[in-house]
Amino acid sequence: MAITLRTSDPDFETRFAAFLTTKRETSPDVEAVVRDIIATVREHGDKALADYTRKFDRADLDAIGIAVTRAEIEQAYRDADPATAEALTFARDRIRDYHQRQRPQDDHYVDALGVELGARWTAVEAVGLYVPGGTASYPSSVLMNAMPAKVAGVERIVMVVPPSGGVINPLVLVAADLAGITEIYRVGGAQAVAALAYGTETIRPVAKIVGPGNAYVAAAKRQVFGTVGIDMIAGPSEVLVIADSDNDPDWIAADLLAQAEHDASAQSILITDDDVFAEAVEKAVQRQLETLPRAETAAASWRDFGAIILVGSLDESVPLANRIAAEHLELAIADPDAMLPRIRNAGSIFLGRHTPEVIGDYVGGPNHVLPTARSARFSSGLNVLDFMKRTSLLKLGPEQLRALAPAAIALAKAEGLEAHGRSVAIRLNL
Amino acid sequence: MAITLRTSDPDFETRFAAFLTTKRETSPDVEAVVRDIIATVREHGDKALADYTRKFDRADLDAIGIAVTRAEIEQAYRDADPATAEALTFARDRIRDYHQRQRPQDDHYVDALGVELGARWTAVEAVGLYVPGGTASYPSSVLMNAMPAKVAGVERIVMVVPPSGGVINPLVLVAADLAGITEIYRVGGAQAVAALAYGTETIRPVAKIVGPGNAYVAAAKRQVFGTVGIDMIAGPSEVLVIADSDNDPDWIAADLLAQAEHDASAQSILITDDDVFAEAVEKAVQRQLETLPRAETAAASWRDFGAIILVGSLDESVPLANRIAAEHLELAIADPDAMLPRIRNAGSIFLGRHTPEVIGDYVGGPNHVLPTARSARFSSGLNVLDFMKRTSLLKLGPEQLRALAPAAIALAKAEGLEAHGRSVAIRLNL
Repeated sequence: MAITLRTSDPDFETRFAAFLTTKRETSPDVEAVVRDIIATVREHGDKALADYTRKFDRADLDAIGIAVTRAEIEQAYRDADPATAEALTFARDRIRDYHQRQRPQDDHYVDALGVELGARWTAVEAVGLYVPGGTASYPSSVLMNAMPAKVAGVERIVMVVPPSGGVINPLVLVAADLAGITEIYRVGGAQAVAALAYGTETIRPVAKIVGPGNAYVAAAKRQVFGTVGIDMIAGPSEVLVIADSDNDPDWIAADLLAQAEHDASAQSILITDDDVFAEAVEKAVQRQLETLPRAETAAASWRDFGAIILVGSLDESVPLANRIAAEHLELAIADPDAMLPRIRNAGSIFLGRHTPEVIGDYVGGPNHVLPTARSARFSSGLNVLDFMKRTSLLKLGPEQLRALAPAAIALAKAEGLEAHGRSVAIRLNL
Repeated sequence: MAITLRTSDPDFETRFAAFLTTKRETSPDVEAVVRDIIATVREHGDKALADYTRKFDRADLDAIGIAVTRAEIEQAYRDADPATAEALTFARDRIRDYHQRQRPQDDHYVDALGVELGARWTAVEAVGLYVPGGTASYPSSVLMNAMPAKVAGVERIVMVVPPSGGVINPLVLVAADLAGITEIYRVGGAQAVAALAYGTETIRPVAKIVGPGNAYVAAAKRQVFGTVGIDMIAGPSEVLVIADSDNDPDWIAADLLAQAEHDASAQSILITDDDVFAEAVEKAVQRQLETLPRAETAAASWRDFGAIILVGSLDESVPLANRIAAEHLELAIADPDAMLPRIRNAGSIFLGRHTPEVIGDYVGGPNHVLPTARSARFSSGLNVLDFMKRTSLLKLGPEQLRALAPAAIALAKAEGLEAHGRSVAIRLNL
């Protein structure tokens, strides 16, 4: 059973505020261990990678090599279920099409004074993509992280993935190949992040590192930030479903459980205006749990972090949704387009009864790497701009410099920066 | 004297690589102190702000109030030099005009399968702007941080500035008013960052915090990150000037010193192909230092971190510039437009002999908050998108769901996520 909150309750605001600030994960303190691993990789390079991989992944890189070979990729295609490989190709194409529309335009113009101004976008030269091993080794995430980089024009995308027990999920290799990644190393953990940031004999350093990982990987990314760029550190996944009573309770329950099965720290929230419907959804959740392979995880998530919020009218759900700022927001209502303009904070919005969030995890087209833990208030899902940077451009001739000089010199003087003023004045014999 | 490196020297690559990784600043370890300040502000709110302000800024907030009043703004206009206020207005207008072109477009389209897709940009609801006190209290930085937020459509911009000895620079208040900021609090340090992130009785929390600050402010921003968004943590400023021998050595020396006077950790680099010119610039630097008010700072910066790199031809400067990835890059050469397409990594580029970097500090139009310490390899200057976020949109009908379902179900199955598959299948009676 999830908790139930009612906006009509006198203590709703207090309880909702507490609900919003509930912490769903505690990260172990691995700072010191990670610091040591990074220092060791910087000092000993490939040898350190081999040592850590032997220790943490029970795999011998001296025997199997750090780099994944073309022959292994081809073997992965043979090992993969053909229907799944085809589904990955279908997903790859849809993700590419959606992200191609995100490519930014350069700008160049001349203002009324004759000053030339502009902005130019360029791709990051090299990007590292971290892929977890074991059960969290998702081929869909390889596509979601790699395709925006590819579309951005990143020339070098380097994938690292731990060879848990010597093995890499063949679908991860197929997804990498479909995304056009040609440089793959079987190394994971903080040691892989260190190698990507600082380089080793085999792995040339990159300029930015993206992709999900465990607490060690997250800590390592934080520690190398500055030397390289990193993406956001994602928290546990979450969905908010706003649903009227015309929905099939089983559909909505399935959506809530799809989120809950990810992780015991995942969060599924239902907002509805109908008590009877809410109860029917809760019953459907319990019923569906009975036959779910990951029932233990999903039940824990629903019990510990799930919530049903009962509102007097669905209108009330809009300000609540904006405060929750969910990673995924489903509008399972009769006219979702009417509500949409008032929704401000959400990572991704799924409109209507036939758009389950799961479609967005795989084949919708938009990215599934999205802001969690209310960070949709200030950040966006992974996109092409995350792999590009903008350089501003300015060009003056003598006449334009004369026009701008007085204000620049006045401000430099006011800020006590004499050499600033001089650098302008000297060009005008002022 | 700055160091000199020559690409023709046999050990150039080794020396240049070492030069690139030179650390220019050491930040004191203030993590624990800052953690304590944040906890105290969360617990005691306004009272904690008053206590810390009494201690660190020698000002009594109980007497003068936390909020800056409209009357104080009007007094600031009277106290400010009219020519400087006019220069700030001129700068404000140019910054606004440049940033208005950065406003992103929403997207909406229907693909061949009839799937509706889109992306919608919305402004961050509330932004906190930190402004340092004392000599680093720059009105130009108020404009540079506030105007992109204003152009983005942020409704609430909250400025905090420490009242060093009870006093706030009137030009900072004028700049804030010109930028349309109506909510200003006289509080600084980690305590101000804590108030912005978590709120107090007087200060409502914001969703993102930007602006420069000392080590305490930087540590506080890192610690509240996640609860709110933050901008990049800026390091000491730097300029790279690529200059041919047709330049007046005094102009180039003035540009190098304008950067050096900021901070003893600032860095000025000259790349040129002419020994005689390089020597003339070094002489001009020494000569100009003699009459510079901030000579001590500028001389230390030039001596400790300045560099002259001598290349065989200016063509060689391009790959070096891309590795240096300077915050500011001046192309003081005959045909800067010809070199421009090959420059990939730079925060802002200043083209031609009549575009000193200083123009960009104040009145060019582009932002002066730019990536430092080689981070232009993976990040951009402050811009309108930093104050907006993108939400992706997806809408399927029954027919579209049927078209996408097989691939989604196949991938969910391959990833072992049964509830994911069900959430799609249940809608199609599969």
